Order: sequence, then C-alpha cells, then structure tokens
Amino acid sequence: CHVPYLGSRYPVETMVQRSQDFYNLMNQRRSVRFISPEPVPREVINNIIHTAGTAPSGAHTEPWTFVVVSDPEVKHQVRLVVEEEEEANYRHRMGDKWVSDLQKFRTSWVKEYLDVAPYLVLVFKQTYGVVAGGKKTHYYNEISVSISCGLLLAALQNAGLVTVTSTPLNCGPKLRLLLRRPANEKLLMLLPVGYPASDATVPDLTRKPLHDIVVHV
Amino acid sequence: CHVPYLGSRYPVETMVQRSQDFYNLMNQRRSVRFISPEPVPREVINNIIHTAGTAPSGAHTEPWTFVVVSDPEVKHQVRLVVEEEEEANYRHRMGDKWVSDLQKFRTSWVKEYLDVAPYLVLVFKQTYGVVAGGKKTHYYNEISVSISCGLLLAALQNAGLVTVTSTPLNCGPKLRLLLRRPANEKLLMLLPVGYPASDATVPDLTRKPLHDIVVHV
Ligand SMILES: Cc1cc2nc3c(=O)[nH]c(=O)nc-3n(C[C@H](O)[C@H](O)[C@H](O)COP(=O)(O)O)c2cc1C
Ligand SMILES: Cc1cc2nc3c(=O)[nH]c(=O)nc-3n(C[C@H](O)[C@H](O)[C@H](O)COP(=O)(O)O)c2cc1C
Repeated sequence: CHVPYLGSRYPVETMVQRSQDFYNLMNQRRSVRFISPEPVPREVINNIIHTAGTAPSGAHTEPWTFVVVSDPEVKHQVRLVVEEEEEANYRHRMGDKWVSDLQKFRTSWVKEYLDVAPYLVLVFKQTYGVVAGGKKTHYYNEISVSISCGLLLAALQNAGLVTVTSTPLNCGPKLRLLLRRPANEKLLMLLPVGYPASDATVPDLTRKPLHDIVVHV
Repeated sequence: CHVPYLGSRYPVETMVQRSQDFYNLMNQRRSVRFISPEPVPREVINNIIHTAGTAPSGAHTEPWTFVVVSDPEVKHQVRLVVEEEEEANYRHRMGDKWVSDLQKFRTSWVKEYLDVAPYLVLVFKQTYGVVAGGKKTHYYNEISVSISCGLLLAALQNAGLVTVTSTPLNCGPKLRLLLRRPANEKLLMLLPVGYPASDATVPDLTRKPLHDIVVHV
C-alpha cells in the first residue's frame, strides 16, 4: 500500500541558507577522546538513538540494536575487554605500519573514556533476522547500520555532545557475550558519549577541500 | 600537534528540545522514487556534499569521492547500465525470495528517476590511497563512506530534498569506467537527488518503536 509523500519544501534562499548552516554545524564535529563524567539526561540519548533508527535500510530490515551502557560496573567490564584486545593489537597483531599510521592521533590501548563517559553506545548489526521457520538474510546490513551511525553522529553534534567513532578490533564476540546479545548480532561500533571534558584537545587535522571530494559531470 | 576542542554547549532544556526537533525532522525522511525534474541550485548540492565530507574516517583517510552527474546524456548512460544489470538481477541472478522480499517496495528494473532527477550522486569508496612509493590501505573504508552517506542523507533532508538510497548490484565496474574513476575507487551508492515529484507516493511503512532498537544496561 502506497501513500502520498508529504515533505517540507523551502524557498530557494532558505534552502541555500539551511544547507550552509547545517554544513557549519557538522563541520564543527570532531572525534573527542576526553569525555566529561557529567551526567546527560537519558531522554536526550533516547532521542538521538531514535534519530539513528530513522535511517534507510536494505529492504527496510532496520538491522540495528543500540546497547546503551551507563552502569559503571558494566562500563568497566567493557573497558577491560577492549584494552586487553587493543594491547594485543598494538603489541603483536598489527604491523608497525599500522601503529605508526595511528601515531598522530596519540591513541594507545589505554581508553580511560570507557570508564568516564556517562554512556557507552555499542552498535550491533543484525546479520540476519529470525522469523518463523528460520533465518532471513539482511541485505547490506553493515552499510545500513553505518548509515544509521552517520545519523547518530549528526544527532549528537546537534545536541552539543561528543563521541569518538571506534570499531574495536576482535572485541566483538566477548562484548556480545558480556551484553547477552543474540548470535545474529555482531558488534560494529563502540561510541562513548558525553559532554567534552573542559580541557579536551583534538589532533590539529584539516579536512579535504570540497574540490578534492566532488567531481561534477 | 593537538589543539583545544571548542564545541557548542547548550543548556539542558535546549539540548532536550534540539534532540527532539532533530528527531522529528529526520523521522520525516523517506526514500522517494518519484523525483521532480525541477532544477536545484548547485550551491546547495555542494553544501550537502561538503557536509558528507565532515564525516569521521578510519585514520582520517577521508576515503570518498562524490561524482555529481547533471549532464542529461551521462545520466542516460548511467540509467542504461543500471537497468541492464537490474533486469538481469531480477530475471536470472537472484532467487525468487529476493524478488518477493522487494515486492512491497514496487521496485523493478525500470528506473525513470535516473533520467529525471536533476542530479545523480555516485558515491565511490577509495579502497586504498596512492602515495609516493605505492598503495596505502584505507582501513574501514566502506564503513567510513557509509557514515558519510548518513550525513549526506541528513543534509538532504535538512534542505527539503529527497533521494532513494541504492547500492546498484554489479554495476560498479561499468559505472567506474563510464565516469573515468581510477582503479582504487569502487562504487558504493547511487543517489538520485532532487525535489520530490508533486504526486510522489511512498510505501506505507512504519519504523520500529524505540524500545525495539535500544537496550539500556
Ligand atoms: C544499503 C541500502 C540499499 C538499498 N537499495 C535499494 C534499491 O536498490 N532500490 C530501492 O528502491 N531502494 C533501496 N533502498 C531503500 C530501502 O528500500 C528503504 O530505505 C527502506 O525501504 C526504508 O524506507 P525509508 O528509507 O523510506 O525509511 C536501499 C537502502 C539501503 C540502506
Ligand atoms: C570506521 C572508523 C573507525 C575508527 N576507529 C577509531 C579508533 O579505533 N580509535 C580512535 O581513536 N579513533 C577512531 N576513529 C576516529 C578517526 O580517527 C577520526 O574520525 C579521524 O581521525 C578524523 O577526525 P575527526 O573525526 O575529528 O574529523 C575511527 C573512525 C571511523 C570512521
């Protein structure tokens, strides 16, 4: 069954201005690795995750689960799993090339923000659905969930909150068990969320200019 | 080199309101398959792509190229490639299950919007970078580019424009050659962009309620 599409239409000058303002807002987003312990209302986190849930998905499968951890003990368990795996990645598994590529971000396997941030959002992709009679494949589940994380990042930025996008290597199975997620769910991203620490710093990066990312034909 | 992070901080009530308003705006987004031929200023498209370019990316590789096609002849060539492949997908390659899963969207291999939309945005992921001396792997390039498409969709919605997210199966190599993109770039998504047609309809879908996508721990 199909219904009329009802969308907002803006006068051209308004549209130009809105597109410029939204660029300015999003361009202020940075990955922040120093997060304040101050509490953030749960209503805001819920609105932000609700926003992520408006993303498109292959065949409307909505293949995402957002686990929001605020319990200090569980946050600490998450930290222990991530740090153990990350230390192994840094020390043995990945080449020197990988470690040196990451040097400029001053990242290491110590992730204090996993204890400190008021929320850890663990994003799971549902690789298949469970329906009467068996498994239903979720086409493009990783792409769909990544798109929804893009909306989640936009919603955080719009609310004045920060995160650092991370895809913890090799931690998926342990964190899935820790959080008791079913076998069809795989960890895709881990996002610590909160206000930035008052003395937070970020790497002094620049972004590519528009003409390096767009080609008009 | 690190610099202080300077972000906007809103009073709590403002933050709650902003998060609600942004949810309401994004929740009105729909995939629209009937696009108006009316022109859209190039400045708006550029602002929207600039917004997509603010996405985070693994090791700040910014592994994306957005090819914006407005030339009618090239749009038509894109359509011919997509329809040829899609017809083969529907007729032979994919199982009946796939075709029946898609029935409710009333999609078929005929994609009129590829001629009609004022812009086709073809999103390429750069699977590796080319630097002096050889190839530099782009970690998580597909995830990063999908996140940036999430920001692109948010920016379109914010401007009152529509698209339908699509990942054209098997069309990548031909479209890469048509658009003369280098070998390290692979097509990830094709987004026709414009105003909705005045009589556009959409499938009468609902979204999962918040409690089906979030788990608080
Ligand atoms: C990765 C991905 C691939 C998609 N591929 C197609 C496609 O090939 N054709 C199409 O008509 N819609 C496609 N869609 C759109 C979905 O069908 C649509 O997002 C879903 O039905 C939910 O509807 P909504 O976007 O209006 O919320 C795709 C969406 C995603 C995220
Ligand atoms: C898929 C993906 C994985 C990432 N993984 C990590 C990570 O494990 N640790 C980290 O500190 N930053 C990680 N980042 C953040 C990037 O380093 C960051 O986005 C990039 O340096 C650009 O900085 P910006 O986000 O401030 O624009 C990741 C980003 C993406 C998109």
